[in-house]
Amino acid sequence: MNNFADVHAQAQFAGDKMKKNNLFTTDRMFCDMYCFEPGQTQTAHVHSDSDKVYYVVEGRARICIGSEEREVGAGTAALAPAAASHAVSNPGPGRLKLLVFMAPKP
Amino acid sequence: MNNFADVHAQAQFAGDKMKKNNLFTTDRMFCDMYCFEPGQTQTAHVHSDSDKVYYVVEGRARICIGSEEREVGAGTAALAPAAASHAVSNPGPGRLKLLVFMAPKP
Repeated sequence: MNNFADVHAQAQFAGDKMKKNNLFTTDRMFCDMYCFEPGQTQTAHVHSDSDKVYYVVEGRARICIGSEEREVGAGTAALAPAAASHAVSNPGPGRLKLLVFMAPKP
Repeated sequence: MNNFADVHAQAQFAGDKMKKNNLFTTDRMFCDMYCFEPGQTQTAHVHSDSDKVYYVVEGRARICIGSEEREVGAGTAALAPAAASHAVSNPGPGRLKLLVFMAPKP
């Protein structure tokens, strides 16, 4: 595995649903680039024993963590701690590129 | 702890050495914003059992992982896997803001 990644070069989108592009994987964690066309969503879900961090690289994101929902832009990081329900959607109008870190790897 | 962070608002620099600003900490990982003035360095070191991911938010970074050294800009992510020596410096001319994820927390 290469230890360096250009996140924009790795950002692939899909017309039918948000697309996960893996950048790095180890035994302990993974780092992905999630790509959302306007209107695409990652529906609410829970990881009982893993923490996830989102970082908005480009675009707008509506991020829900537990009972808190915020619409945020580039430069915002968000933590979905283990056992907290979390969801993301792209309210548009542009594409959303989201860096994602999760540990431990579920 | 707040689950949302504006990384630029949290970016504090120090004149004497690079500054680590914590964004999120859990039992399993941490997420920091490292801030480097031009010329500041994080010297080479090793974490035997933890992986670290760097993401360049702003500025230029000279990142060394194992025997590979690259100078990269905003939009580049780098993985320092457990047991690999890693170091970062800011070659300038601007400030460097580096998002850092590490798991498990050492």
